[in-house]
Amino acid sequence: MTQASLPIGVFDSGVGGLTVVRALMERLPFESILYFGDTARVPYGIKSVPTIESYTAQITDYLLGRGVKMLIVACNTMAAVAAPVVQQRTRLPVVDVIEAGARVAAATTRNGVVGVIGTPTTINSNAYAKVLHQHRSELRVFSQACPLLVPLVEEGWLDHPVTRMTVDEYLKPVLAEGIDTLVLGCTHYPLLKPLLRAAVGDDVTLVDSAITTADRAAELLQQQGLTQAPGVSPDYTFCVTDIPLRFQTIGERFLGRALPQIERVSW
Amino acid sequence: MTQASLPIGVFDSGVGGLTVVRALMERLPFESILYFGDTARVPYGIKSVPTIESYTAQITDYLLGRGVKMLIVACNTMAAVAAPVVQQRTRLPVVDVIEAGARVAAATTRNGVVGVIGTPTTINSNAYAKVLHQHRSELRVFSQACPLLVPLVEEGWLDHPVTRMTVDEYLKPVLAEGIDTLVLGCTHYPLLKPLLRAAVGDDVTLVDSAITTADRAAELLQQQGLTQAPGVSPDYTFCVTDIPLRFQTIGERFLGRALPQIERVSW
Repeated sequence: MTQASLPIGVFDSGVGGLTVVRALMERLPFESILYFGDTARVPYGIKSVPTIESYTAQITDYLLGRGVKMLIVACNTMAAVAAPVVQQRTRLPVVDVIEAGARVAAATTRNGVVGVIGTPTTINSNAYAKVLHQHRSELRVFSQACPLLVPLVEEGWLDHPVTRMTVDEYLKPVLAEGIDTLVLGCTHYPLLKPLLRAAVGDDVTLVDSAITTADRAAELLQQQGLTQAPGVSPDYTFCVTDIPLRFQTIGERFLGRALPQIERVSW
Repeated sequence: MTQASLPIGVFDSGVGGLTVVRALMERLPFESILYFGDTARVPYGIKSVPTIESYTAQITDYLLGRGVKMLIVACNTMAAVAAPVVQQRTRLPVVDVIEAGARVAAATTRNGVVGVIGTPTTINSNAYAKVLHQHRSELRVFSQACPLLVPLVEEGWLDHPVTRMTVDEYLKPVLAEGIDTLVLGCTHYPLLKPLLRAAVGDDVTLVDSAITTADRAAELLQQQGLTQAPGVSPDYTFCVTDIPLRFQTIGERFLGRALPQIERVSW
């Protein structure tokens, strides 16, 4: 087996990272994917930094042990507080959703005023603002934690008056700052894109970090000569630490297609 | 140290059980309490039964090892699917929120039509209906899973239009059945009592399982001669597996007073 034929390892605290897998399947249709969702310990967004670091290290080592050619940190919370933990453990290319989203947002904004929405841990880490400022130090960044959006997506209220009212309340202070670009800093949020689009109007660009992550992965694979040859039928494997109620339903909503055989990992 | 002077062990998947602690402090002001919240692995309501059973066994053994005179399963999810796991491990009296709430609801309803609201796992376990039917087999029970209410409480939107709209949507089918009693089958819900009261009107009795659990604990302690003598200053200890962001704020909202020294348990 050549290095290029190994799967891309994608990991998340739960099912949210499947929006990244979906974007990867569309962007890189010949690449195999090994997905890891830590469903027994989800959500990470409310845990402390040392706990998140230790879980991140454990998952990274597991995927490296199974053999992958690239690691994608598809969880904003892990990317926000534990990206260095992943980098320290491997020389393989690593893509994280925050770096990928911030890079595109910095290149997109015309007026230099960028909004970011995410879970409380992601927002409090200030990770998006830090990476945005590395790219363009003059940017003004306004962030808003939106703890209710993940449960609303998982409830399936993707186009519901309660969700619209919640989104309006969360976005009001950010929109008041005159942003022209809004980063969806959580892998659950791409499912709310139509509703978010209606809330922000046509003049604000939405940066979908699932898509920007897939684009960045494609770029790095090509730079490093790791792209799988076209025509190969890819292998998709989904590992989870627990198979909870409604996992299949929610997972398929995120993935946008049927979920194949799921492997349960017991630690 | 006599058996009666030992603390009551109360456990939950997170902070929700603090509403039970609050009711215990008011009902039994001389009893010491050892609280255990599994904040590193919260929430349990979305995990599988084998996982919940194994976590419940681990917490039970931990509290028994520290020395308690009674165990209170303050988590509806654990009570729903893992109460036998606790019973098997000890001869001490065990109180669980479901048994305590269902007992009172069965005695309260006049028209025999009872509603139950809770997390998806609690509702899908059918545990409330089973216990209600053990008490009065002719009861008609209508249940509704309300996955958004826990996040809404943790966001602090206790009297918010979004919460009112969500509650109305969840309660509509249950109210249409003509219930005269509604069991709050989740330890987060007592914080929504004013809003729930407004939603159900004056003719429906709300059964607050935190209060019914404290009442049941008082009754069992007295029956078994385990009540602490009055006048003693009680000891309150709070153990958690992780100290997440906002823990202090949310915990104090649940407890209704300042949270004293918190012990972090590392497994």
